Amino acid sequence: MKKLVPTIIVERLPIYLQALQNMQQNGQETTSSDELGRQVGISAAQIRKDLSQFGEFGKQGRGYGVAYLVEQLQAILQVDRVWDMALIGAGNLGRAIAHYPHFAQHGFRVALIFDNDPARIGQTMGNLVVQDIAQLDEQISQSRVQLAMLTVPAGAAQAVTDALVKAGIHAILNYAPITLVTPAGVRVQNVDPVIFLQSMTYFL
Amino acid sequence: MKKLVPTIIVERLPIYLQALQNMQQNGQETTSSDELGRQVGISAAQIRKDLSQFGEFGKQGRGYGVAYLVEQLQAILQVDRVWDMALIGAGNLGRAIAHYPHFAQHGFRVALIFDNDPARIGQTMGNLVVQDIAQLDEQISQSRVQLAMLTVPAGAAQAVTDALVKAGIHAILNYAPITLVTPAGVRVQNVDPVIFLQSMTYFL
Repeated sequence: MKKLVPTIIVERLPIYLQALQNMQQNGQETTSSDELGRQVGISAAQIRKDLSQFGEFGKQGRGYGVAYLVEQLQAILQVDRVWDMALIGAGNLGRAIAHYPHFAQHGFRVALIFDNDPARIGQTMGNLVVQDIAQLDEQISQSRVQLAMLTVPAGAAQAVTDALVKAGIHAILNYAPITLVTPAGVRVQNVDPVIFLQSMTYFL
Repeated sequence: MKKLVPTIIVERLPIYLQALQNMQQNGQETTSSDELGRQVGISAAQIRKDLSQFGEFGKQGRGYGVAYLVEQLQAILQVDRVWDMALIGAGNLGRAIAHYPHFAQHGFRVALIFDNDPARIGQTMGNLVVQDIAQLDEQISQSRVQLAMLTVPAGAAQAVTDALVKAGIHAILNYAPITLVTPAGVRVQNVDPVIFLQSMTYFL
């Protein structure tokens, strides 16, 4: 049974993991909550408190072993395996996402691609063939895919989401400029760049 | 002088604006905090409280005028104008972003594109020519650009950020998989999809 940890804490763990993986890539073997805090812009006390929710990872006065903490965070976040994902929408953005090199490096793999445009269906993207969205339910139900990325127009996004949920998808990365309505137990993360830009222009 | 409003509230306003603009596009003239709340997954009370930070936008018992509230939120967020942006990194992702149709619709315009790859410098993207990153300081300083989008590799991102800050950039949309260090007064929003995916796999 998984410990109930506030979402806000869970959402900081990938940021710690990313910084630790960058350290690891630079050959660094140990770090401290102070150093990690400076790199991610979060206080050392907050980092120690967040990590303490999941166990005891540092050694008194010796800080954290970078490789060890990377492994532990990967296990906690369940990214110590490969997650197959479905990509819905094979336009410009979908195409860029399908080729994004960091997914593979971090345990994510685009396994299915769908579109409703006859001009795109049957086309090859990487080593995958774009499939007819009419096949979505059948294809996803038969696969291990639990994650989907949505790059369809706003007007189509909710209907596609309903179909994804019906097919067994539990987590959606949403690039469409609309807030999706999903049942409890289905998570959505919104990555519409306009929203992020607009929350900065206020301060300019 | 701008009212000091918590960032967390400011970051919800673009979500309200997006939902209201979708209503407007569907020809809807009025709404309520209840309806808006259902669409964006935020309580009606929270929405009323957030909006009350900026003024009185609804009419007792008659809800909100959609077009009026859109206009007001656009003015508050300062997106009732066109913001020129610089895009750094003309790879696959940069290319998709340069062609993203929602920027133009929401007051953002890619005005400058830079890369350090000789094979990309001089190429055309849309109606812009990819410029040498060596020209970044000069080009940005001479322009009205205050916003930048970063799609360079992690290893290059901090150095590019330092150059952007020096050139007068005040807000960065960061697609690079690294936490950027910036001086106070320079805002960064991270949109690395891996981070968003990893904060969902915990719950699967």
